[in-house]
Formats: sequence, structure tokens, C-alpha cells
Amino acid sequence: MKLPKNINILDTTLRDGEQAPGVAFTVDEKIQIAQKLDQIGINTIEVGFPRVSDGEKVSARTIKNLGLNANICGLSRVLKEDIDTLIDSDLNYMHTFIGTSKLHRDYKLKMSKEEILEKAIYAVEYGKDHGITVEFSAEDATRTEENYLIEVYKSVESAGADIINVPDTVGVLFPSATKELISKIKNNINIPISIHCHNDFGLAVANSLIAIESGASQAHVTVNGIGERAGNASLDEFVVALKVAYTLDNLKIDTKQLFNLSEYVSKLTGIKIPINKPIVGENAFAHESGIHVHGVLENAATYEPINPEMVGHTRKIALGKHTGANGLKSKLKEYNIEINQEQFSQVYDQIKNLGDKGKTITDADLKAIAITVLGKVKNESIKLVGLTVISGNTVSATATVKLSINNKIEEKSEIGVGPVDAALKAISRLVKEYIDIELEEYNIDAITGGTDALAEVFVIISDSKGNKATGRSTQEDVVLASVDAILNSINKIIAIK
Amino acid sequence: MKLPKNINILDTTLRDGEQAPGVAFTVDEKIQIAQKLDQIGINTIEVGFPRVSDGEKVSARTIKNLGLNANICGLSRVLKEDIDTLIDSDLNYMHTFIGTSKLHRDYKLKMSKEEILEKAIYAVEYGKDHGITVEFSAEDATRTEENYLIEVYKSVESAGADIINVPDTVGVLFPSATKELISKIKNNINIPISIHCHNDFGLAVANSLIAIESGASQAHVTVNGIGERAGNASLDEFVVALKVAYTLDNLKIDTKQLFNLSEYVSKLTGIKIPINKPIVGENAFAHESGIHVHGVLENAATYEPINPEMVGHTRKIALGKHTGANGLKSKLKEYNIEINQEQFSQVYDQIKNLGDKGKTITDADLKAIAITVLGKVKNESIKLVGLTVISGNTVSATATVKLSINNKIEEKSEIGVGPVDAALKAISRLVKEYIDIELEEYNIDAITGGTDALAEVFVIISDSKGNKATGRSTQEDVVLASVDAILNSINKIIAIK
Repeated sequence: MKLPKNINILDTTLRDGEQAPGVAFTVDEKIQIAQKLDQIGINTIEVGFPRVSDGEKVSARTIKNLGLNANICGLSRVLKEDIDTLIDSDLNYMHTFIGTSKLHRDYKLKMSKEEILEKAIYAVEYGKDHGITVEFSAEDATRTEENYLIEVYKSVESAGADIINVPDTVGVLFPSATKELISKIKNNINIPISIHCHNDFGLAVANSLIAIESGASQAHVTVNGIGERAGNASLDEFVVALKVAYTLDNLKIDTKQLFNLSEYVSKLTGIKIPINKPIVGENAFAHESGIHVHGVLENAATYEPINPEMVGHTRKIALGKHTGANGLKSKLKEYNIEINQEQFSQVYDQIKNLGDKGKTITDADLKAIAITVLGKVKNESIKLVGLTVISGNTVSATATVKLSINNKIEEKSEIGVGPVDAALKAISRLVKEYIDIELEEYNIDAITGGTDALAEVFVIISDSKGNKATGRSTQEDVVLASVDAILNSINKIIAIK
Repeated sequence: MKLPKNINILDTTLRDGEQAPGVAFTVDEKIQIAQKLDQIGINTIEVGFPRVSDGEKVSARTIKNLGLNANICGLSRVLKEDIDTLIDSDLNYMHTFIGTSKLHRDYKLKMSKEEILEKAIYAVEYGKDHGITVEFSAEDATRTEENYLIEVYKSVESAGADIINVPDTVGVLFPSATKELISKIKNNINIPISIHCHNDFGLAVANSLIAIESGASQAHVTVNGIGERAGNASLDEFVVALKVAYTLDNLKIDTKQLFNLSEYVSKLTGIKIPINKPIVGENAFAHESGIHVHGVLENAATYEPINPEMVGHTRKIALGKHTGANGLKSKLKEYNIEINQEQFSQVYDQIKNLGDKGKTITDADLKAIAITVLGKVKNESIKLVGLTVISGNTVSATATVKLSINNKIEEKSEIGVGPVDAALKAISRLVKEYIDIELEEYNIDAITGGTDALAEVFVIISDSKGNKATGRSTQEDVVLASVDAILNSINKIIAIK
């Protein structure tokens, strides 16, 4: 297999990525993402479509003038006004496009083949006359008649285009078709070839790789694969496949930043990284089943294609239904919990039991179970005796909490920004003598249903010594559920102290 | 391209899918999923690993005895006890495996090549002696020395195996490597070849397709691609790619059920379908950007690879930052909102403005904006004057709500399962004279942070005529946010009535 000497990566998170329904970046967010893409080593950053809005012009100009290493590219139709706006935004790299397939000609553009060809040539010449780099896309290339497509590409090459791009606009390419198409274009065109894949059939990364195998030297990608519909080829997957599977050494991408970059873009877009997303998903290096955990503990490579550190991620041994004895032993060792064979069997059974019910088992749960089995657990020392909260739009949210602490009844009242906050403050004061708690995480699981649906509250609290415990409670009343979860976690910390 | 005459699909959602960290099915859930897989036309269903637990045995036996059309298959190591348990679970199709790569031999199994070969042959012969179908997997096949791998496959073929499976256990295959490997195996083996891909580099579906192109006649898939780490090849993507890209007519899978099946498994596993997942994701057939919406309105095929109905999904035109005039016009038309050019520009600007702030714009929002622009809006007729809620563990949650309704102050008190429920009941009674509301959806967005973090409440209410409106509010106090969102939506309905 002969790969091109240098492979160029064009990231279009800020353009095609932003076209994903529901995604919109502010100017500042675009600047920050562009800087991160530059840091990781992206060659060309497509920052937007300047003609679309003033915000797009401002972000393009600002990013261009940051002086990054990457080429800064903008999108334009084959219209003079689009190109003028792009140049007026200080950009010197244009990605211009026009649809070429029969569907696009007949229904969208309502133009003949000749008109389209003419407009494409015009745009390329106009761009070159203004001294800018021109990348030309025949939109919907993969559904365009092959002869016409080659004719278009040859014509824009003659008109001076610097690179041609092959957009699989609706993601219909499949492996052998990609190879055939790119090879044919390569045989007819002398300027560099770029590929732009969509993931409608889940093949965007594979088709991008096959295009590279077949003669393309650039691929368009996005962070987390966001983009129109099912999105584009995912940057992280494409880069890691090239580096690892194709053992490509000269790709200057700092893979260690991939995980952080994905998390960052996920936070800004609100599009969560799927738990089973390759490379950067929460489960990408997580192991639960007995056979796999056994293998990973002997040598992680048995069940991992790469070391998670390569992409800035971490390995996780999870406990659950499929946990084997080896996984559990390694966890107990990690926490210095010494346990005999009989006790081990008891802990193991309880873990399996919880897992069979479909429960996630956290490390704190494991500790609490082990402590119970070891007989070291103290009786639940803090119990809720009374709770009254008052809140509203004109009264300060007030909670009065009565607790039984080591069988002594105590009561305190506090105000807060809302009833839950007030209750937490009252509890903190009540238990202060025994334990100094801090709320590390408070999470109400998305409730969908009526106002009488069950609310699931999950908390993590810590004490001054750094002990952490989870607590959870599911009740119809979100305030009661919160108080219950908090007390639950406090009792766990008291038990494991 | 010559594809095999019949392609067999083995679904392993209930085995490899269940091995995904955090996933555990109950016996009942396994039975229900197996029935759905059978209905959709899956050829072989791998239902679990009977030796792992009693629950696994029970579910295997129960599913086997349902009399489904699909073959019912179970996993086993190459151990007599595993195979006996499998047969004892009434199964007559065994998928048996042993690691063959150097990593697995040296670190996991601590066995020589010869020992492994011997055990593999033993298991196949033992299975065949008991009259069951035997599928043999050389675990980590894709990192096994090619000559040894072929030797293992030839030996199990001689021992009577019915089909050999090629597991890409850690997902390191890439397109051209898949072609080479499967072609070589095909040249050496006469029984059917199966492929089992993992998605660590995002290539599972592509590698499965290439394996089929190269001579394999079966692929292992899972619903939503769940499985160890980044998961397996996704059933829906694999099937649609075969049917559409490869125009394979004789694949007997009822694609119309794919969307429902994905939703069902997502609900049971708690693993959400990524918004940009191909085929079944929320955005798979959603369009927002002006150019795309324009094309789709002329002819959906311009920007869609398949009709969403093919997979039981629906098209969605979204409004946002990239909305063009055409998208907005089609939405207004859909709601019979007649508007002149100047009013249109005002609505358009407001939509763009909301979109620039990264807000999702629902159809109810659009209606409310249009009504405001048309000057048809009544003054906000219902205002919150007073709210007091009392709740706790020993008092009934009680809300007293004072509203200004058309400038008349009225007050009512109600009890409920929690403070929000009580407030909703009081509001319903207060507004009953003007509008009969029903809460269609109540959603607290997952709150992560402290108890003083902002809670975002989103509601949809409807009146007796079927009008629907959304309301949302973000405040620190979840009760106040809920009341505010509910009143917000009521005022919208009153406005558009």
C-alpha cells in the first residue's frame, strides 16, 4: 500500500460541524476552537461561511489575524458576492462549491451542466485573479455522472484551482466505490485531491481512509464527527487509524490532546460524546467482563488497540454483572481492602447481584459493601427525623431539618437560594461536629414525565480528609430525594472512616 | 463486485452488547429483545454465555424454546464444562472461541500454539459429537500470525466446524487489511466465513462490508453498535449500507423496524442514541442550514441518502442560526401563518438572533414570535403574584399560588406529591375558567454542580383544543423555575388561541 508522502487534514468543525441542527458557535467560541485545532496540528481550518452573517465575517477575520500556523479557509458559493465577502474578511483560502449531480442540477440549482461548469470556472478564475488559494468542491460528487464530474474537475484544474475536493454530500459512498472513484479522478487530475465524507451509513472515516489509500492527499474532518445530519468523518478516529493501523509516522498531530479537544467541543455544542464513541468515549478503554479484565490486568494490550494515554484518555475497570474475580480483586487491592476467601465470595455475590439488577457500581459502593462484609460498619448514625421547607417568590427558601445523630435529636434551620440548597446548609451545620462535608457533585437526572414523575438525585460528597462517597435517592419529591441522597452519602463516609 | 448469494446476520446484542460496561439485561429483557430481533429478520441471535450465571442459562433456554425462526446461539470457551452447560441450556448452536494471537497466548492463556490448537479441535469435535452447530472464533485473529491463523482455521474445519468467525477483537483492522486477510482465509477454507468487528477506530461497519466483499458470508452486529469498549458493528448501518449502497435485494431484514428497535434497546440499556448517529439518530434526517433546507424542500433526495420512512424514522426541518428564508417560509406555511414581507423579515431576524445565541427554536417559539410580529398578541394575561410552598417528610407538600389573571387577583392552595406537583395543581384550578390545561411533558434538564446550580425546566402543555405550547425557565430554585415555565407556556397558549 502506497500512501501519499504528506497527508493534509482540513478540519471543518467550525463550518460543516456548525451546520449540525442545534449547533451555533459564538465568535469567541470559534476563536477558541480554532486555537485548539491549530495547537493540535491541523493543517487547514475551515472557519465558516463569511457571506452568511456579520458574525461569520468577524470570526473569520479575527481568526485569520491571530497568526496561527494553520491555513484559514472559508466557504463560498461560486458567486462573486460570496468570494468578495470572503476576501473582505481577510481570508486568502477559499473553499468554493457548486452542486453537480442531476438531483442538484434539476431540483436545487435548476441549471444545465454547461451553466454549472461555466460558473465553477468563473469562481476559480475570480479567486485566482485575487491571488487566493482555491479549493473547489463538486457538491454531491458521488452521485454525479462520472464523465461529467471528471470534466468539471479537469476544467477547474485548467482554470487554476489549487486542490479539488470530492464531497460525499449525502454519505452514500461505500468502500469499493470510494476506491474506484478516487482512483479514476487521480488518473485524470494532477492537482491534489481532497475527500469530504458524511457518515449517513457509518462509513465516513473508512471512506476517508480508502480515499487516501487511493490517491487523495487531504481529508475533511470534524471534532466528534459533528456536521450535517449524521455528521462528518471524526477527526480523532481518522488520525488514530492513520497513525496506528496505517503506521503513518509523519502525521504531525499531537494525539495526546484529542480527548480534551473532544470534551471541549462537546461542552460548547451541547452534543454529548456517545459513551461508546471510539477513541474518546467514556467506554473506549473501559472493561467490565471477567475475561477482558483478566486479560487487561495481565497486559492491557490483550484487549486494547492502543494505550489510552496516546489520546489523553484513561483506562477504567468497571464493576457490574460481568465482573470476574480478577477485576474485583484488583479493585480491592487498589483500595487496600484485605479480605479472606469467604468474605471475598460475599462481596463478589453482592456485586453480581447489584449488576444483575442493571445497577452501575461505583468504587464507593464497593467500599461500602466490603466494609459491611468485614463487619466494620457502624450502625447508620444519622437519620432524618423531620424536614420542613418553605419557599416561594416572596419568601426566602427556608429549611428546618431535624436529625437523629447517634440517637441524639438535633434541629436547625437555614435559608438558601432554593429549598434544596437551604436543606443542605442546615444538614451541614447539624453534622459539622462529626464530619465536615462538602458537596462535590449534585445531579438531578433528567426527569421526563409529569410533575409527579420520580426524580433521581445523585450526589457525591467529600470530607476534609478527602474521603468521597456517593448517595442516591429516587422519590417523587425532588427536595426529599435530595435530602435523602445527601444523608445516604454522609452515612457512607462515616462508615468508611 | 461479487457478493455472496446469501448474507447471514448474527446479532450479538445480548452477548457482546451486554458486555459493554454498565449494560445488564434481565431475563425478561433478553426475551423481549430476542423476539424483536427475530421479527426484524435476523438469521442468528447470540443470546449469551450460559456458563457465566444461572440467569444466562435460564434466558438461553427460554429464548430457545420460544420457537423463533432465528438460530439461537450461545458463547462458550473451548472447555467441556462450558459446552455441557450450553447443551444443558437446550441450545444447539455454539459459538466457541480461544485466543490465538501471541499477546493472548503469552499473557492471557499462557499456552503454546500447539496447546491452543489442540483445545480448539477438542471443542469443535466435542460439539459435533453432540450434534450441535459449531461456529469457531480465533479470538484476536487480526493480530495473530497469518500462517498460524490459517493453520488453526484449517484444523477446526477438518474437525467438523460449520463456520469460522474472524474476530477483530480490539478493532485494529483497516479497509485494505481486511480485504487482504479475508481473501487469504477464503482461499484456504471451504466452510462459510464470518466477521466480527469492533469499532475502536470507527471502522467496524466498513470492515464488515469489506469482509463481505472479500468472501465472508456472515457478519456479527449489535443494535446501536453496543459492545466491549467502543462497541461492535451497528446493525442498522450495516443493513442499510448493504441494501442501499450495495443494492442488495435479497437481504430479508425489515428495515422499517430499525428505528423502533434502536429506541427500544437504548431505553433498556440506558445508553442514549447519539444525536448524530447514522440511520437512527435524532439528526439523521434533520436539516437546518439554508442551502440544505432549500434543497430538501424542492426534493428531499438532494440532501438525503434514503427516505427516512425506509428505517421508520422521520424528517425534521429545524430552525436556528443557519435557517434560510426557505426553511422559515415552509414552517410558516405549515402553520397557516400568513405574513407580509416586512413581517417576514422581522420574524426571520428574531429567529436568527435566537439561533446566534445557540438556542434551539421549537415550532411553538416560532408561532409565538410570528404572533407577536403580527401584533395579534394579547398582553401577558397571567402573572405570578405570590407563591408559597411547604413540604417535608411529615407534612403534605402544599402550594399556595396567587395569580393576577386579567388583572384580577386570585389565590388557591393545593397539595401534591411534591412542591412542584402541588403548585401545578393550584395553577390548574386557578386558570380553569379560561383554559383547561394538561401537562404533556415536564423535563428538568440534568443539573450538575452544587445545589445552588441553575435548574432548567422545560414544559409542554396542551389545552382541550389540542393547542400545544412550550415553556422554559432557568433559575436556582427548581420549584420557582417550574412554576415560571408553566405560566410561560400557559400565556403562549392564551396568546395563540
